[in-house]
Amino acid sequence: MEGTKLGTNVDSADGEVRAYELVLRYIEAGILEGRYGNGTLLPPERDLAALLRVGRPAVREAIRVLSAQGLIAASTGRGGGTRIVAAQDDALGRILRLHLAIAGQGIHDLTETRIALEKVSVAAAARSATEADIAELDEVLAAMAEDDQIESFNSLDTEFHVLIARAGSNSLVADLTVAIREAVKDPIREASYEMGDWQEFRLGLIEQHQGIRDAIAERDVDQAVNLTERHIRGAFHALTGVSDD
Amino acid sequence: MEGTKLGTNVDSADGEVRAYELVLRYIEAGILEGRYGNGTLLPPERDLAALLRVGRPAVREAIRVLSAQGLIAASTGRGGGTRIVAAQDDALGRILRLHLAIAGQGIHDLTETRIALEKVSVAAAARSATEADIAELDEVLAAMAEDDQIESFNSLDTEFHVLIARAGSNSLVADLTVAIREAVKDPIREASYEMGDWQEFRLGLIEQHQGIRDAIAERDVDQAVNLTERHIRGAFHALTGVSDD
Repeated sequence: MEGTKLGTNVDSADGEVRAYELVLRYIEAGILEGRYGNGTLLPPERDLAALLRVGRPAVREAIRVLSAQGLIAASTGRGGGTRIVAAQDDALGRILRLHLAIAGQGIHDLTETRIALEKVSVAAAARSATEADIAELDEVLAAMAEDDQIESFNSLDTEFHVLIARAGSNSLVADLTVAIREAVKDPIREASYEMGDWQEFRLGLIEQHQGIRDAIAERDVDQAVNLTERHIRGAFHALTGVSDD
Repeated sequence: MEGTKLGTNVDSADGEVRAYELVLRYIEAGILEGRYGNGTLLPPERDLAALLRVGRPAVREAIRVLSAQGLIAASTGRGGGTRIVAAQDDALGRILRLHLAIAGQGIHDLTETRIALEKVSVAAAARSATEADIAELDEVLAAMAEDDQIESFNSLDTEFHVLIARAGSNSLVADLTVAIREAVKDPIREASYEMGDWQEFRLGLIEQHQGIRDAIAERDVDQAVNLTERHIRGAFHALTGVSDD
């Protein structure tokens, strides 16, 4: 029966719930109520189908939808199955980028949001970054100093900000920061090609990153926060030619 | 052929791309490259199937996945079809909540993130709220003053914060604020039931909301930001018994 329903279009104006939606809601409720935590193995397809009185294709549909949302993943090998996972594969970032693209989110809004989030993450990094975290920042800084190609330099720049976000203890802020930093990557690259003197701009960015790295290493939270805000606003201004204030 | 592939599990460790993933990537690329903007009608199912050389079930799969992510929706009625949409139905918020639930995101992290985002949105509201926005805030405040039931009061409280987020011009911050405010709704409700004197707490919340509303109406950005931060931190402290500093 659900075969027929699944064969219709996505419109559910008829008010009926499709079989795969039943499965979706069941698994989502399990996650929200805490029964399905990170790493939990889902029941086998046939058991879920029997439990919810739907066909196995409906269960596979729901699994695919949740998999594309980065909420579950297949374990490989025999004896494997489908497990609940935390933040699989940047799926959340990808979905966020798609929403941002459709909403035509302006670079100004993205920048303001980035500043708000990165101030939180750099403060956390200045409080809790380990020596290993600082060493990773130094590696990226060394690579930036040697790289004068826009494409690869821009990737290293993104990596620097992502490392700081991950060094803080707030994983929600880190995930959002990463998604937004990825979302502004292309506009930043394009604006870089149109700048009068990108090489000078590049040297400024390295110097600012070095300052932020030092503030983190010295556990100077206020300095790290101020430098981060100034760095992002300054880069925005240089790239777009308009003030962000 | 894709029928067989779709019949396998979600594991793609074999390195092959499934037919529905081809369709997904095609539509996603259209969104990211700006060809598919808000409101764009997707080609009919059979055209997409022919173009990408996949079966129609694969196209339906991809449509379902994107629909669950709130990126597309069916237009109803004859002559309708599947359209790209911006921020459909809080799908982004729902996915975010599921990720937060799996990651076991602590209420402390959520609170810090809320503060960072709501400071941006209340500043935007203080700069650009219309008289209609203020009137809506007043309506919610009036309803809060008359409501002393935890469940419905908590919903009105959420609504107040969501209205402020929507009154600002930054829709990204608004979407994230709404998702996070929704994610903390249940923990706040549960903690409310366990408080010694919820009625007194409730009166404090109303007073703080009134102060924030007044600062917005008076276009006092700094005051609105300070009161919002103090309000969220204070409520967190009262509800959890621990300081958020």
